[in-house]
Amino acid sequence: MEKENRILLGHGSGGKLMHELIENVFVRLFSNSILDAQTDSAILHTGSSDIAFTTDSFVIDPLFFPGGNIGKLAVCGTVNDLAVSGAEPLFLSVSFIIEEGFPIDELEIIAESLAAEAKNAGVTIVTGDTKVVNKGKCDKLFINTSGIGRITSDKLKIGSADGIIPGDVIIINGTIGDHGMAVFNSRESFNFKIPVESDCASLNHLIREVTEKFPVKFMRDPTRGGVATVLNELAVKAGLGIAIEESSLPVRKGVKAMCEILGFDPLHVANEGKVIMVAAKENATAILEILRNNDKGSESSIIGYITSDHPRRVVLRNETGGSRIIDTLSGDQLPRIC
Amino acid sequence: MEKENRILLGHGSGGKLMHELIENVFVRLFSNSILDAQTDSAILHTGSSDIAFTTDSFVIDPLFFPGGNIGKLAVCGTVNDLAVSGAEPLFLSVSFIIEEGFPIDELEIIAESLAAEAKNAGVTIVTGDTKVVNKGKCDKLFINTSGIGRITSDKLKIGSADGIIPGDVIIINGTIGDHGMAVFNSRESFNFKIPVESDCASLNHLIREVTEKFPVKFMRDPTRGGVATVLNELAVKAGLGIAIEESSLPVRKGVKAMCEILGFDPLHVANEGKVIMVAAKENATAILEILRNNDKGSESSIIGYITSDHPRRVVLRNETGGSRIIDTLSGDQLPRIC
Repeated sequence: MEKENRILLGHGSGGKLMHELIENVFVRLFSNSILDAQTDSAILHTGSSDIAFTTDSFVIDPLFFPGGNIGKLAVCGTVNDLAVSGAEPLFLSVSFIIEEGFPIDELEIIAESLAAEAKNAGVTIVTGDTKVVNKGKCDKLFINTSGIGRITSDKLKIGSADGIIPGDVIIINGTIGDHGMAVFNSRESFNFKIPVESDCASLNHLIREVTEKFPVKFMRDPTRGGVATVLNELAVKAGLGIAIEESSLPVRKGVKAMCEILGFDPLHVANEGKVIMVAAKENATAILEILRNNDKGSESSIIGYITSDHPRRVVLRNETGGSRIIDTLSGDQLPRIC
Repeated sequence: MEKENRILLGHGSGGKLMHELIENVFVRLFSNSILDAQTDSAILHTGSSDIAFTTDSFVIDPLFFPGGNIGKLAVCGTVNDLAVSGAEPLFLSVSFIIEEGFPIDELEIIAESLAAEAKNAGVTIVTGDTKVVNKGKCDKLFINTSGIGRITSDKLKIGSADGIIPGDVIIINGTIGDHGMAVFNSRESFNFKIPVESDCASLNHLIREVTEKFPVKFMRDPTRGGVATVLNELAVKAGLGIAIEESSLPVRKGVKAMCEILGFDPLHVANEGKVIMVAAKENATAILEILRNNDKGSESSIIGYITSDHPRRVVLRNETGGSRIIDTLSGDQLPRIC
């Protein structure tokens, strides 16, 4: 490949080369009136003085995986963090750290996915940054996205676990562990012949369909650390116990097989298109119906409930009547999964 | 050094180790009621529906340099991007990408500087993210900060160069090229025996002192690409020429010496505590007085003016009556300067 088609150090130096890269790739693909102004800061009208703000750096390896790539993921991750906080995602910043020598055509494919997913989710990319580091000083490409959403006063406490009582149900919008196993499977050294695809998706529209009709007491996206980590944090926050039914846990065959071979628990594996919702028992059926009518929630199910038994602990009950405590993972399971 | 004092892959995996790192280092040092909630998104009250939003990733090498470190820089850079847009900086996100094996005590020193500079600047760190990559997959530590500021309606157009006319003056709050040369000088292979210190500083308070008394028509911080790049962008935006007087350019002796030896033009060297302001001629003396009464502006000067001659070009006039065009840098000068 010719030198001209690769990222040079000069693409990050604030001069003409950087200006060209920004114009020819980022402004071309992300174009909107706010971004195109290319000022030091984007000037935004949020329509509210209550906003949600979040940030995430993506260092996933490999950059491309079944079901997505780092560009799509960088949008979904930040959009979902805003959406589970009860906010309507509006604006994103995108910051690239690129290794010298990275192919510009790959950068374009990633930026195209990023732009397409932003369009899907209905968010506008309003500001950005590009840095280039010498060959060997970063692994191909890292992306940071930060996001701003508008939040209405009735949703301000959705992350706090206030108002959760025994009997409330725990709902998830589909199968667990798909993202982690898809990424793991696309690493060269672990290429299982099992079709596993990441669930990487922006959930803001799905979440809104539910929250505009029914109160949701708590929401969280089970990414790094998986469902187990979210449920443990919730149990501690609420000061109550959580009981999960093993038979109700939706896990795809391929993911189950990989987890068995590798010794992973799907409850600890990362998801990128899932939301855990806690709602009052009387709303559960109606919420499930809304979720199941949406592509991103067709396999939704109730996986457990809040209990006054075993406060601050998550207990999994299996089909034979046995039970075991599900803890947060201690250290490392799968590095660079997002 | 013991293994326990270094960053492990598990510190980035969403489990207990990560939770401990966040609690023991980041929450301890950055603590405030919004951050401490540790929700997916920070819930913020901006007091205005007009906000400024900016992002920057910092990949500076080395991490520590005379006058600062990557932590201080990560605050100054984003605070200044907000301030030059006319906004009052309020909130920051901080996202770390850390190389496995990085010493935790160095991370603490950097996080302490970051916290101290945020306090100086009066901004609150409200949300964050931590990723760890395998040894050799990034160079020690990268930091992204994104920032939100409140902007009042009279300042919405400060980045647009609207209303600039021939005769307007160009002011800078002190010497140029200090940051770039300090960083360059602290790289092992180029250790000149010249004391040069980075100007790394948050300028929001200084800028506010000026803008609450006098209209400023344009502001920009001359970071990567230096003063020359900002002036060229301004000349194009305004469709006017810019004339700079060489004798008025404030350059420290050590910086001048280094630039001469290395063949750099101080006009192309990065600054991290400088702002270029364009103001009406009749306000120039009063603005200079305000700037000079502040520590961060004691060496402020008028470096040139807007002209209808040579539209869209920046021309430097020297003491002997000669002149030359100052262009934007084409490619690379000093990689990883910020």
